[in-house]
Amino acid sequence: MSKRALSVSREENFPDWYQAIVRDGDMAETSPVRGCMIIKPWGWGVWERLQAELDARIKDTGHDNCYFPLFIPMSFIAKEAEHVEGFAKEMAVVTHHRLKNEGGKLVVDPDAKLEEPLIVRPTSETIIGDAFQRWIKSYRDLPLLVNQWANVVRWEMRTRLFLRTAEFLWQEGHTAHADKDDAVAETLKMLEVYRTFAEDVLAMPVIAGEKPANERFPGADNTYSIEAMMQDGKALQAGTSHYLGTHFAEAQNIQFQNADGKLTYCHTTSWGVSTRLIGGVIMTHGDDDGLRLPPAIAPRQIVIVPMLREKPEDAALIEYCAALEKDLKAAGIRTLVDAKAVKSAEKRWNWVRRGAPVIVEIGGRDASGGNVTFMRRDKLRDGDKVISQTLPRADFVSQAPALLKEIQQALYAEAKARLDGNIITNLNSFEDLAAYFGPAEGDDEGGAFKGWARVPWSRPEGDSLDAIADRLKALKLTIRNAPLGQEQAVGKCLFTGEPAKEYVLIARAY
Amino acid sequence: MSKRALSVSREENFPDWYQAIVRDGDMAETSPVRGCMIIKPWGWGVWERLQAELDARIKDTGHDNCYFPLFIPMSFIAKEAEHVEGFAKEMAVVTHHRLKNEGGKLVVDPDAKLEEPLIVRPTSETIIGDAFQRWIKSYRDLPLLVNQWANVVRWEMRTRLFLRTAEFLWQEGHTAHADKDDAVAETLKMLEVYRTFAEDVLAMPVIAGEKPANERFPGADNTYSIEAMMQDGKALQAGTSHYLGTHFAEAQNIQFQNADGKLTYCHTTSWGVSTRLIGGVIMTHGDDDGLRLPPAIAPRQIVIVPMLREKPEDAALIEYCAALEKDLKAAGIRTLVDAKAVKSAEKRWNWVRRGAPVIVEIGGRDASGGNVTFMRRDKLRDGDKVISQTLPRADFVSQAPALLKEIQQALYAEAKARLDGNIITNLNSFEDLAAYFGPAEGDDEGGAFKGWARVPWSRPEGDSLDAIADRLKALKLTIRNAPLGQEQAVGKCLFTGEPAKEYVLIARAY
Repeated sequence: MSKRALSVSREENFPDWYQAIVRDGDMAETSPVRGCMIIKPWGWGVWERLQAELDARIKDTGHDNCYFPLFIPMSFIAKEAEHVEGFAKEMAVVTHHRLKNEGGKLVVDPDAKLEEPLIVRPTSETIIGDAFQRWIKSYRDLPLLVNQWANVVRWEMRTRLFLRTAEFLWQEGHTAHADKDDAVAETLKMLEVYRTFAEDVLAMPVIAGEKPANERFPGADNTYSIEAMMQDGKALQAGTSHYLGTHFAEAQNIQFQNADGKLTYCHTTSWGVSTRLIGGVIMTHGDDDGLRLPPAIAPRQIVIVPMLREKPEDAALIEYCAALEKDLKAAGIRTLVDAKAVKSAEKRWNWVRRGAPVIVEIGGRDASGGNVTFMRRDKLRDGDKVISQTLPRADFVSQAPALLKEIQQALYAEAKARLDGNIITNLNSFEDLAAYFGPAEGDDEGGAFKGWARVPWSRPEGDSLDAIADRLKALKLTIRNAPLGQEQAVGKCLFTGEPAKEYVLIARAY
Repeated sequence: MSKRALSVSREENFPDWYQAIVRDGDMAETSPVRGCMIIKPWGWGVWERLQAELDARIKDTGHDNCYFPLFIPMSFIAKEAEHVEGFAKEMAVVTHHRLKNEGGKLVVDPDAKLEEPLIVRPTSETIIGDAFQRWIKSYRDLPLLVNQWANVVRWEMRTRLFLRTAEFLWQEGHTAHADKDDAVAETLKMLEVYRTFAEDVLAMPVIAGEKPANERFPGADNTYSIEAMMQDGKALQAGTSHYLGTHFAEAQNIQFQNADGKLTYCHTTSWGVSTRLIGGVIMTHGDDDGLRLPPAIAPRQIVIVPMLREKPEDAALIEYCAALEKDLKAAGIRTLVDAKAVKSAEKRWNWVRRGAPVIVEIGGRDASGGNVTFMRRDKLRDGDKVISQTLPRADFVSQAPALLKEIQQALYAEAKARLDGNIITNLNSFEDLAAYFGPAEGDDEGGAFKGWARVPWSRPEGDSLDAIADRLKALKLTIRNAPLGQEQAVGKCLFTGEPAKEYVLIARAY
């Protein structure tokens, strides 16, 4: 039994711990629709914060938001050959546009069959490409930089809340450029936006790098990712950015007249992050008492719990809390007074499980003494003991912005130390690798902590790469990426024995 | 031929004028998917502003945002009988979850048929009700107040951008209450939120009232609406709020234990507004030069056009504009410098058509003299002549916030005068009504301006109401609503001859 606020600890069973935190942290729940989740108010509040922060960064880099149709005609999906292979497998297909009542029973009306089936978008390259082909005429229209926030559907067989769901929410950026240099620069610029966003806002350190050929987005020339290390050591692909070459432009006739009047294919990119990031936040920062939210994305940064006793003195307590809330809000802090008719202890632990960065408890003595007693969610305990601090109210208010910054940094530092300390670099053979990671366990079993391996790599492609991917797959391993900005590789490729061209990261992954 | 910036005037052909403004104002366009629109950056920017303003009001009234699945199992739709009748007709039905490659051709995989078809949500009462039934246990859980921003699909045969599209975006509020009084109060509270939002933010005056029984939401006990008058005199239902009684609660077993421990059905409500509001804004404020956006929802409130001449002096002009932009932004004004390599006149008219509230043009003389020359989009012309004003830069900046407020109010006042001046109240018989409105013309023909009629009404229901609705329908008329807060009705019902209980508004409508 856990001695903490969740019924199961990370150590006991990481996947069960994850489920407990999603449930008890009021983040999300499963729905009666297979693979589709219900995002609850607290979870949605995190998504809203995350959206606002990222959206500002997307706009600051010159992109305009638009909205494109939910549905994609089946023939569009067929246009880009690799894209078909990658996405045509599991998608929601709309075939009819009407139900009818048949003897008191609702059935699909066979007379309302669509001429062409529609696909619920799994991603929007093809439908947006069609618009680009109409919008782009001359080099003056380039670069064309758009983004949309949307729901997408991929028919997943095994789902896990936030991490892998049939319907998920994301942003997808789509851009068209006059040449390769400009498109590649865009691809890398947005990867960097993702990296800084993950680190500065989510307090989630990541490694940005290029995916090997077998892990590319279907139809991409190059795919880049940011990868984060979860507390079980697994990697989470937290965002991707793709240089699509002229594949989609050729498939969809996205051409422009260049300065010399010559018709030329555009180079396109796409990039996205999704509600999966919330799963990443949970597995980066959660502890056995529940979620710990970085202040930058906490829907409420400070929650004030008046220790009500159903006595006449309660009115004064509530008044004191309201005044404190007002001061904190004036300082730009998202604050809530939880004055619900629920026991104070229960309220405390609810907010602990939800991960409010600072939880204030105001009792009669605090109110009469003009003090504030509070807990930092990131440093909740000393051993088993819950730590609280007391400050004069004015001091607490004046120090609160700095306190939130400190919590944000502390969460980042803790995760950064984990990432930096758990990349093993001295594996010299495939056997070493196999021995380090040990046998693959079932997906839902968790298992002992394993970090990542950084190994020399000769950048094989084609059949050779496929064979390597298969050997890794047998160990449930994948190549995550080749980190950008890495030093010159030395030694021989762990797989081919050829001179290394770079290092790649290998890990088990979500 | 129009002497204005659009190719067609309101007078010449109102529906064509609407299409021209949507297109030339860069708001939206049709897509290759029947009935689904592409919302372009400027149109999306309006939606973002509108969302932000309304979302704040929804939160201020105690509602939490959540997110529920896109899909609804077919059996859920069948649960509420009237709801089936109302919505089961035209919906997108997902029947399969996979495509396959058959001889090089992509087809729907017959082996991937869903056990139960899924409906793309046309509205979410049933799927949210299912969650309510799980979430609500005791009176302490009430009221439960949630909202979601989502896309919905209703298979419309005749579509018009923003006004009626197969896919549209909206917010839908869903609440559960312990008793009727509380639920009705919520229904009316949100109607009032919509009314003030429409008037204060969209500058669109509306009349709030109750729909007659035949116009209720399928499954509602009472439906209320806000109705706005477009420039062709037609009514636009701009938002609805429904008291659902216990119908959905009974169909879905949404019960709570009351203070006495007795299981009791909840009373529920739902309310929504959609991207249709943008159509309303266009038809309320647009003129023959294009859109006129109320500053509260203009993505850019002031657009600065440097009159570039491809000469070395351009650099100084751009610098002057950038400094002006900085000052305006510091004053909290959404500002843009349009320094694109396009002719200044072309840029001016682009921004006129898009409806930027204030358009600044900076030439060499303005820059050297420290002046700002600007046009108010709401009062662009005197006769045919375009009016511009010049102010010292510091004065322009200090007066800009007040100027934007004045424009917001002027647009509202103009629309309010139209609404107030075009409700005829002296019709004494159905014949009078028929004569006033004249024969019904084709939907897309526009026709002469007709306002609304306010007539005495005995509140008939059932067959009598249906017969009246049919008579009105033959004239393409509908009862819009019975305004709230109206004075005591006098006289006899125009249709039944019985003593009037209230007045209702009758109009042609979108």
